[in-house]
Amino acid sequence: MKPRALALVHYPVLDRRHDVVASAVTNLDLHDLARSAMTFGWSRFYVVTPVEEQQRLAEKIREHWCQGYGAVYNPDRRQALELMEICPDLDEALRRWEDWTGERALPVLTGAAVQNGMSCQQCRDLMQDSPLLLIFGTGWGLAPPLFERGWPTLEPIRGAGTYNHLAVRAAAAIFMDRLSENRI
Amino acid sequence: MKPRALALVHYPVLDRRHDVVASAVTNLDLHDLARSAMTFGWSRFYVVTPVEEQQRLAEKIREHWCQGYGAVYNPDRRQALELMEICPDLDEALRRWEDWTGERALPVLTGAAVQNGMSCQQCRDLMQDSPLLLIFGTGWGLAPPLFERGWPTLEPIRGAGTYNHLAVRAAAAIFMDRLSENRI
Repeated sequence: MKPRALALVHYPVLDRRHDVVASAVTNLDLHDLARSAMTFGWSRFYVVTPVEEQQRLAEKIREHWCQGYGAVYNPDRRQALELMEICPDLDEALRRWEDWTGERALPVLTGAAVQNGMSCQQCRDLMQDSPLLLIFGTGWGLAPPLFERGWPTLEPIRGAGTYNHLAVRAAAAIFMDRLSENRI
Repeated sequence: MKPRALALVHYPVLDRRHDVVASAVTNLDLHDLARSAMTFGWSRFYVVTPVEEQQRLAEKIREHWCQGYGAVYNPDRRQALELMEICPDLDEALRRWEDWTGERALPVLTGAAVQNGMSCQQCRDLMQDSPLLLIFGTGWGLAPPLFERGWPTLEPIRGAGTYNHLAVRAAAAIFMDRLSENRI
């Protein structure tokens, strides 16, 4: 399997009224996604926001845990947050990931409302040949323009009924687990 | 499959120095675990803390989303948080769960350091006959006395390497997914 990365997008995403907005960075999103990525052996975690103040906030969190007091207080957290990079937009994240892998990457979009997405098994097959960049939205999900780029999508996580309001922290953990090689 | 519930324990748990402590309730734990439980069709979510102030905090969060402004603002959140009950200790959670199901429950402990735990497949087999109460610890995990009660344990989530520091929000989501019936 080729290396894998994830991107957490804060713009363009939807808010609860389905307007396109830039969402705020949530501290626990960064920690949880970094720890899940580290657990499942994913190589990079791109935090995407064009808002400079938010970029600084994310950078401050990263620095605290990677170089500051946090690195001494909790070295496990350091290892995870070292996977994190802050990017102004998704194209920059994709560019950096392709630079990192030296290969053409496979960007894949996720969302609770995705129709006709591929299964995790189909995605795992593609991951044999291309480094995956799995893309998650914050707020009420990735905005429509991202779905017009011709990138493949992943079938949403279906539970027992019609309720499909998982936290992005939970959805990302489940997808990373489902897309792992040593899946039982 | 019989009904399933989860418990999130704030005492007795370990802190980073492996002392037994009561941890503080984290707002996002309640939301994330409730939303995951709702997604996967679990019936109850017991928040366990003996600290009265913390019980009041958890109750306040529940009320805000179930009866207050939050119930109107975000009805999806309401549905999820209605699964939540606050208990002073794990025995009370188990008692309430047995009252709810009218059957003898199957308490199962989780933890990143569990040795010789059963697989999710083995657990799913037991879940055909008994209502599961899946127990998660906050902080640095459930304290040793809980592991001396003779309850079965679940094999930790293994990723790509030795790193095993998933957030409880992520671990709970992955286990609920792995223990679901319509697992792919």
